[in-house]
Amino acid sequence: MNDKLIRSLRENYQISFKDSELLEQAFTHSSYVNEHRHLKQRDNERLEFLGDAALELVVSEFLYMWYSDLPEGKLTKIRATIVREDSLAKFAKECGFDQYVLLGKGEENSNGRNRPSLLCDLFEAFLGSLYLDQGLEAVSRFLSIIILPKIKAGVFLHEMDHKTTLQEILQKNGDVDIHYELIKEEGPAHNREFFVTVSVGEHVIGEGSGKSKKMAEQKAAHQAILGLEKK
Amino acid sequence: MNDKLIRSLRENYQISFKDSELLEQAFTHSSYVNEHRHLKQRDNERLEFLGDAALELVVSEFLYMWYSDLPEGKLTKIRATIVREDSLAKFAKECGFDQYVLLGKGEENSNGRNRPSLLCDLFEAFLGSLYLDQGLEAVSRFLSIIILPKIKAGVFLHEMDHKTTLQEILQKNGDVDIHYELIKEEGPAHNREFFVTVSVGEHVIGEGSGKSKKMAEQKAAHQAILGLEKK
Repeated sequence: MNDKLIRSLRENYQISFKDSELLEQAFTHSSYVNEHRHLKQRDNERLEFLGDAALELVVSEFLYMWYSDLPEGKLTKIRATIVREDSLAKFAKECGFDQYVLLGKGEENSNGRNRPSLLCDLFEAFLGSLYLDQGLEAVSRFLSIIILPKIKAGVFLHEMDHKTTLQEILQKNGDVDIHYELIKEEGPAHNREFFVTVSVGEHVIGEGSGKSKKMAEQKAAHQAILGLEKK
Repeated sequence: MNDKLIRSLRENYQISFKDSELLEQAFTHSSYVNEHRHLKQRDNERLEFLGDAALELVVSEFLYMWYSDLPEGKLTKIRATIVREDSLAKFAKECGFDQYVLLGKGEENSNGRNRPSLLCDLFEAFLGSLYLDQGLEAVSRFLSIIILPKIKAGVFLHEMDHKTTLQEILQKNGDVDIHYELIKEEGPAHNREFFVTVSVGEHVIGEGSGKSKKMAEQKAAHQAILGLEKK
């Protein structure tokens, strides 16, 4: 097994595998197994099956706890932005996992090491191996380093409709008067900047600016959501 | 909270909730909340979000362990037959959960208590509440009573293509000569029964009968799979 990987896991995430074969399997792509049949190594696809489910549960719990007022439909949408291929591929890169995966020559030559689907599968397979080796608690600890700060920073909300989200949060217990107001426009017509506030009744709860009124409203709503989450 | 439900969970599944409000929430449908806003009760939809993910992980682990030789694609297919709506609705009925769910009048009158989607959501919400109250281990213990025996009996395989599965199991480590043989036909033309064996090389590993040669082959393959699993 790659010593650099083992060291990196220990130093960056305080993870040491009891069963190093599991870790090795997680970093073994099927293309490598196919080219080295005599080694009788197992590829990472079954671990990916398990890791995908462990990821889903841990992320669901993060979202359930963090967004304690969001309805199920909205949680499902945010979860989808987190567990989708390009997000997971990015996490794998952040962890440097792309350096360590064993690939067959064909896969290597066609730049498989940077292919999002391969990196996404690798990330899930690693989670599967960690789950088998040390249980859900360990997967949750690891993902609380990788994903939880991004959830708290609202990274995945960027891809959501903030105005709808804000409305759903505020109107959970009945109707609330939410309104957006254009307070300022600046700059020449071809490069105008719009400034918007969002208020509940008389109380301003967020503000935002953007190249269109619509973008400014989305930003104001997002700021309001982040403000409400802190309470 | 319904005493009969509490007793049933304790006697049948050795489950006692620490936080009885969680259990109550799991059995509260949104239609009930809508008709009783003054009670400020929460419906079970967010718990369903969490329970769905806990179910997926536990079932994935059961399948990973039980079918230690099946490839990821096949595991994913079997998992889908287990976690789909009509299966979960059946589990909810088996547990008698349909008796205890709180519904609004409209939902009750339109026979919501027997609607598969409602029962499926209820089952998942219960798992979500159990997960929050007692962790994954408890969910796994409960599902090992409800679902694991069915996995072991091959119930969910009925909906799979056994011939393909058998081939995938046997050919995992290279080509194997699998062949099916019609050994007998019985009965009149309009009600004929076909008898088939499946062999690897000279060795018969399964037999089955059915109203068509194809059905008999599927049964023979299924028997062979069950035989291999016991080893």
